[in-house]
Amino acid sequence: MTRPETDDGVFRYVRVERHILGLIEAGRLAPGERIPSLRALGAHLGVSLTTVNQAYMALERRGLLEARPKSGFFVRASPPRPPAPRPSAIPAKPPTTVNRGALIREVLSGMARRDLVPLGVAQTDEAFLPTKPLARLLAKVATAGGESITGYEGVCGNMALRRQIAWQLAGAGIDTRPEDVMVTAGAMEALYIAVRSVTRPGDNVAIAAPTYYCFLQLLENFGLQAVEIPSHPDGGVHPADLQAALDRFDVQAVILTPNFNNPDGSRIPDEAKAEMAALLAARGVPVIEDDVYGDLTFESRRPHCFKSYDTSGNVLHCSSFSKTLAPGFRVGYLLPGRFAGKAFEIKATTNVCCATPTQMAVAEYLSQGSFERHLRQLRAGLERQARMMEAQILRHFPGETRVTHPGGGSVLWVQLPETVDAITLFYEAKARGIGVAPGNIFSSFDQFDHFLRLSYSNAWSPVVEAAVATLGRLACDLSAGDKARP
Amino acid sequence: MTRPETDDGVFRYVRVERHILGLIEAGRLAPGERIPSLRALGAHLGVSLTTVNQAYMALERRGLLEARPKSGFFVRASPPRPPAPRPSAIPAKPPTTVNRGALIREVLSGMARRDLVPLGVAQTDEAFLPTKPLARLLAKVATAGGESITGYEGVCGNMALRRQIAWQLAGAGIDTRPEDVMVTAGAMEALYIAVRSVTRPGDNVAIAAPTYYCFLQLLENFGLQAVEIPSHPDGGVHPADLQAALDRFDVQAVILTPNFNNPDGSRIPDEAKAEMAALLAARGVPVIEDDVYGDLTFESRRPHCFKSYDTSGNVLHCSSFSKTLAPGFRVGYLLPGRFAGKAFEIKATTNVCCATPTQMAVAEYLSQGSFERHLRQLRAGLERQARMMEAQILRHFPGETRVTHPGGGSVLWVQLPETVDAITLFYEAKARGIGVAPGNIFSSFDQFDHFLRLSYSNAWSPVVEAAVATLGRLACDLSAGDKARP
Repeated sequence: MTRPETDDGVFRYVRVERHILGLIEAGRLAPGERIPSLRALGAHLGVSLTTVNQAYMALERRGLLEARPKSGFFVRASPPRPPAPRPSAIPAKPPTTVNRGALIREVLSGMARRDLVPLGVAQTDEAFLPTKPLARLLAKVATAGGESITGYEGVCGNMALRRQIAWQLAGAGIDTRPEDVMVTAGAMEALYIAVRSVTRPGDNVAIAAPTYYCFLQLLENFGLQAVEIPSHPDGGVHPADLQAALDRFDVQAVILTPNFNNPDGSRIPDEAKAEMAALLAARGVPVIEDDVYGDLTFESRRPHCFKSYDTSGNVLHCSSFSKTLAPGFRVGYLLPGRFAGKAFEIKATTNVCCATPTQMAVAEYLSQGSFERHLRQLRAGLERQARMMEAQILRHFPGETRVTHPGGGSVLWVQLPETVDAITLFYEAKARGIGVAPGNIFSSFDQFDHFLRLSYSNAWSPVVEAAVATLGRLACDLSAGDKARP
Repeated sequence: MTRPETDDGVFRYVRVERHILGLIEAGRLAPGERIPSLRALGAHLGVSLTTVNQAYMALERRGLLEARPKSGFFVRASPPRPPAPRPSAIPAKPPTTVNRGALIREVLSGMARRDLVPLGVAQTDEAFLPTKPLARLLAKVATAGGESITGYEGVCGNMALRRQIAWQLAGAGIDTRPEDVMVTAGAMEALYIAVRSVTRPGDNVAIAAPTYYCFLQLLENFGLQAVEIPSHPDGGVHPADLQAALDRFDVQAVILTPNFNNPDGSRIPDEAKAEMAALLAARGVPVIEDDVYGDLTFESRRPHCFKSYDTSGNVLHCSSFSKTLAPGFRVGYLLPGRFAGKAFEIKATTNVCCATPTQMAVAEYLSQGSFERHLRQLRAGLERQARMMEAQILRHFPGETRVTHPGGGSVLWVQLPETVDAITLFYEAKARGIGVAPGNIFSSFDQFDHFLRLSYSNAWSPVVEAAVATLGRLACDLSAGDKARP
């Protein structure tokens, strides 16, 4: 992947932005009030006048401040936010044969190219990960581990790691024993095992629309039918919509990402999770939950999961350390609930067990107790980037563009004017060295053909900033070109 | 696993045995001829008289030498070998729904217990593996690898490793490009990907009888029907039997272990491999080959594979470094041939890619050029163990027992008197702290219910020696008990 340079100037500039936003949110700067002078704030924060000026001008472009000639900057009466995408009004679709394989392959082959600016890949930039401590710990276990480092682990994984995971999950309200944790090669393998554990070919599986495209690939590969239930940027899949889908169709399993759904960033409120978990348990419909973004919340409290409300082993909980520690270590986990026997057999006949040394290194890292502090830094960094990208989109994209304002995760879901075709934009962007994920790959229907998913998890840099600006110009051109056509 | 002690005395004793056997095989000791005196051979090999005497007595018990009073030991006219199991006379069976899952689970849960003497597990003892150099290399790549150590590899794996694998395969007559190699989490994952790449539920898949029980599990899990073709300890599956099965049944794929089939140790001659590869290519029936034992040959030349004769990408070649380097590193590989696109998608949606650091460590190890020397030592060690276990079986098992004399691999296939039930023996052995694999798990039919698979890949020790003796006594008791019944 292109490694964008970390630009300290950009971070200082964001510090100024955040300071001003904090004053506004705390009510210490009221609408219409004059904000501190360049000189005063520069001295207070220890940054240059140029940086403060850049930040003020950016806030002005975002519509949060207004500059009055010869008087300075003032808080605007009603700062406009980028509007959120409109909720889809479409009810759950009848079971559908998933057919996005060819399109997803085509798009992925473009998205993954290492010579592109990777706005299409929802992968945490290594600049945000504790790479050095993990490498040190890996070297340490390799040196100290003796023969056990090359030997097999049990099918369910390293017991020290499983203990740490169980301990960690308590923070998400999940009460689990180490024996109930299965270590997997990332959350992807947990999802694969979970899907195989609860379905047979031909089954109907309810998913969100939009949903992570890998779920569509899994369904297609295993001959499963999708029942797509609309997800709203505000609140995700609603319990009433789920219940209606279960009433109308014969659904054998559900796959959802309740915390910061990829791509629309939605979070299902905890009360709704409890309600849905109870509904699904009562009907005996197992729910596979992907919580890979749960640790990446921008809110003060980590959200709960379906698993937090699971009393009968009906929830198969999938997650990993790929977004928070080291994607290349391939360490994830599955809590298979009442499907433990089936999951065990699938893991054993897929690849026996996970690699031993990386499990040991992650166990060692977690046991040292610095994971929480690392997460706090990571969350703050990602939130900063989300806000920067939102601002950049507002500045460069067509006026009618709407964008989500997620409370966690690593992607923005951008609704373009209906005249802009996302696939066309995908190819135009690729030709200019920019990778994006077009909305079409997140559903089996063409309802998201003027949406883009943009990832903000790459360290912000002039390259990323310029790429978003280029995308905006392309979208404007496509939008204008269409208007000019008749 | 119980770590058996290495007993140097046993190895010296085997050195004497091998020396005498070498003289006989080279024709330097003819039948009826007197062999060197205890004193002469002891001095020549630098071992004690006691050790030479023990070896001579063991060779006498095996029927290779005879002791003549006051004259010494003489080569017997026609030394009896432990007879090989009788080839099965049964032709290929019609497609069958595989139904061994429950039995295999039950047996595996017993076999894998770490408190048992692991004669049921075909896993190379760590005493034979280059654990220390690998641990050092892992520490080295962790220290020197920088950020790349925690990052994703491509779906098909680390390119340096793929180059080394392609280079390595040249020794098996396989001409492949690094781009055609996919790194997998062990050979198990290669097999899983291969099976999914070429089959759909309901398909008929030809396998050997007996076959590795994991193949049966894979077929059962994916709703595939097995067409069992008899395998002979001498020559494995015969081309004519394969052709007859293809003529009679609609077969969509074939899974075979042409080199040292697990459990019967058979090797398909290279000319037969060429014939079968051509036959299958002409009929468009893909062949999945498991070559995980190919590197463990006791012969002077490493045998070829089906893939060596593949000109159309019809062979999916599966192997790993789990038997030769480090099972816990989970590094194996698949050459998917013409199914590369499908294999790629399955790997990506199963677990994205393999762990990065262990791939780097194995690549580093292979690049240092000591793999061949290590293999020579490993092969010699395993052959020594095979011969010791054969001798021990001949000494302690019922007279009618037959045992394979494999040219490689890590298991013996033992045909007990028909009155001995392998499952009963399995439970009796387990109760005495010994793990074995009963023949019943190697076919969907009960044709191997008086067979055992014994692994000789655990470092030979008094514990292992005693366990084989105990098994022999149990088999004698069961055999006698049955005879006494009427």
